[in-house]
Amino acid sequence: MSTQPDQTTNYAALVAEFARAGRAAQRVLARMDDAAKAAALCSAAAALRRHSGSIVEANARDVAAGTARGLSPAMLDRLRLDEERLEGIAAAVEAVAALSDPVGEHISHTTAPSGLDLVRVRIPIGLIGIIYESRPNVTADAAALCVRAGNAALLRGGSEAVNSNRAIHAALAEGLAEAGVPAEAVQLMPTQDRAAVGAMLRAAGLVDMIVPRGGKGLVERVQNDARVPVLAHLDGICHTYIHSAADRAMASEIALNAKMRRTGICGAMESLLLDADFATGGDVVGALLDAGCELRGDARAQALDERIRPASANDWDCEYLDAILSVAVVDGLDAALDHIARHSSGHTDAIVTGDEAVAERFLAEVDSAIVMVNASTQFADGGEFGLGAEIGIATGRLHARGPVALEGLTTYKWQVRGTGQTRP
Amino acid sequence: MSTQPDQTTNYAALVAEFARAGRAAQRVLARMDDAAKAAALCSAAAALRRHSGSIVEANARDVAAGTARGLSPAMLDRLRLDEERLEGIAAAVEAVAALSDPVGEHISHTTAPSGLDLVRVRIPIGLIGIIYESRPNVTADAAALCVRAGNAALLRGGSEAVNSNRAIHAALAEGLAEAGVPAEAVQLMPTQDRAAVGAMLRAAGLVDMIVPRGGKGLVERVQNDARVPVLAHLDGICHTYIHSAADRAMASEIALNAKMRRTGICGAMESLLLDADFATGGDVVGALLDAGCELRGDARAQALDERIRPASANDWDCEYLDAILSVAVVDGLDAALDHIARHSSGHTDAIVTGDEAVAERFLAEVDSAIVMVNASTQFADGGEFGLGAEIGIATGRLHARGPVALEGLTTYKWQVRGTGQTRP
Repeated sequence: MSTQPDQTTNYAALVAEFARAGRAAQRVLARMDDAAKAAALCSAAAALRRHSGSIVEANARDVAAGTARGLSPAMLDRLRLDEERLEGIAAAVEAVAALSDPVGEHISHTTAPSGLDLVRVRIPIGLIGIIYESRPNVTADAAALCVRAGNAALLRGGSEAVNSNRAIHAALAEGLAEAGVPAEAVQLMPTQDRAAVGAMLRAAGLVDMIVPRGGKGLVERVQNDARVPVLAHLDGICHTYIHSAADRAMASEIALNAKMRRTGICGAMESLLLDADFATGGDVVGALLDAGCELRGDARAQALDERIRPASANDWDCEYLDAILSVAVVDGLDAALDHIARHSSGHTDAIVTGDEAVAERFLAEVDSAIVMVNASTQFADGGEFGLGAEIGIATGRLHARGPVALEGLTTYKWQVRGTGQTRP
Repeated sequence: MSTQPDQTTNYAALVAEFARAGRAAQRVLARMDDAAKAAALCSAAAALRRHSGSIVEANARDVAAGTARGLSPAMLDRLRLDEERLEGIAAAVEAVAALSDPVGEHISHTTAPSGLDLVRVRIPIGLIGIIYESRPNVTADAAALCVRAGNAALLRGGSEAVNSNRAIHAALAEGLAEAGVPAEAVQLMPTQDRAAVGAMLRAAGLVDMIVPRGGKGLVERVQNDARVPVLAHLDGICHTYIHSAADRAMASEIALNAKMRRTGICGAMESLLLDADFATGGDVVGALLDAGCELRGDARAQALDERIRPASANDWDCEYLDAILSVAVVDGLDAALDHIARHSSGHTDAIVTGDEAVAERFLAEVDSAIVMVNASTQFADGGEFGLGAEIGIATGRLHARGPVALEGLTTYKWQVRGTGQTRP
């Protein structure tokens, strides 16, 4: 697309133009079979490798600009690409190519009393908007998942990675085109103006779904402003409830892993609930404190270890994404369920217990996208769930929940085969 | 709920209060098994019959008020209840009770490489808002479908039917409560102020989904203003394409049925596409004209019969809901597909053909919720699809498409059973 943004750009018209081109390309993609889509992604991966020099060079300009602008070391690390990281991105595109294609699956197949043959067949959603921040790998990862399921992608990356994203996008588009996929199946918005994001969010009927990938500020803005359906999670306020019948060693290991393996991911535990009948030992909190985690507890939790600081009311609704954990002592399963119902963000909540009946009640009654028994909440991940990859984790109640992979990027239609039926 | 609306009512707070009560009731409902939910609906049906006298009396007041206000005969007919119609409403609630409960179904069951046991289990969506117009039967129909799948319902009916809706709602709530379902599982908004509808539409996080039931004006307002996901269709601009290889008698019968069986339903054909190689006979248009249908055609269609009036550009995007039909002559399948892609509302589109390859291309490439071969578009209906009943027909691309019944009123969560797994 040749449109250049300037101060007078009408972003609604720009998005409409890109959407029309994307939707036309998607119709071509929708007619391609499994093997052709897989081959196109392999071609895109090859193009990424072929252009690795220019991509790394473009990325170096982004890193230099980011350094000059004073980006944090963590942000610069997320931004930085080298040949090795780029090889990882290309390999990830190939891994998506190797996933099985959900399109064409018969979700149901019935015969109506009228004799009509009814098939619900899985089809692509259409044009998917991806709005993301500084990680340039999202350009390739998200595009690959969209295309694998027959969707066109309209990408809008962060300004920090503008040169990296353009270089990655150009390689992807070239590789796809070489394999017969119109280059417009994957488009990158040509402007960093935030108003263009607003236009994407309001493009109902043109963009079929928006997936935001980034921090809470981005997701919040997208959820608040979108007129297009959004697949996302805002917070990962994940709980682990240690029931009185928990194995003590298992409880400590799971709690330690759920909090401390990686503290910055959305599936990290942010709140620990200790059953009053379990808590007396204090070994679970001891293990966390010894590992360097700051604990903020209610009065009963504080009594377990003098190193536990007092929690404020805010702590029960806080996603720390750091080595900090809120801890409450609860009186039994019902109290734990009540606490989780009040404070969970609906992402992932877990129980550790040896009592199967208690486990089953927890699984049934906790109303989160992912509910776990005797496992670390850090498993909340599409790869760990055997989905191959994920476009994100969703906590909404419609369409797809939990890790969203290829199936979540599809919808269905009803195919009805008759023999001349008219309705009486 | 005892809240009385007045000029100073804060509708956001009112909706929040109702939503909290509804969500609490839904948690009770979610713990009830299949048989208990079915029994509760039978109890609600019994209560409708028990209170039939007071419901019909309340309805008579609505009809009298509507007559005084000059409602059209068609609207008054939609509004009117007698003992026979009320028996039909009660029987419909029992029919929903007899449907099989989708809640608890395992959508998938896998074992992850880590050994985690992963089940995607079907669960209720939560609290569903139903916004509808003059038909008081929707109060019972929609409530029954919501409750059958474990959801609470927040109903907002039209002002014409206010007394009827209150009487039906009171009976339903009484019957449900007698069977152990909290009465708040089905609530009726206590105000006819349109601002209260706005508050429901904006209640993201409190109301999980909105289903509008009514005319285009209502659906358009709901789709434009909602911050809550909406399941709906705006238009039913349904096409029937008569391919050159169509059986002539079948083509006439299907076209006649698709247009004239009932002209006011969303699945009625609104646009007929005649293949140039089929059209020469003009028997299909003759049958429609003879049946009293007004035809508005392009120049080539007009050449088929002098009774065909000229179509304006608007006619190709018009849902007449009347004995009027637009007719175009097209050159082959690709031209038909192009016309449908431009003008279909994504509801239901059909082809009549004896050529199986052409039929399969039509089924694959028409991107509507329902695509039919050799059948009348008037079959677009949950009952006809064997779903038992429908809450509506959806043309959006996410969650549920086409006729939406119990399964569309559910979502899922991931239940993960471990044996102490921590993530490496």
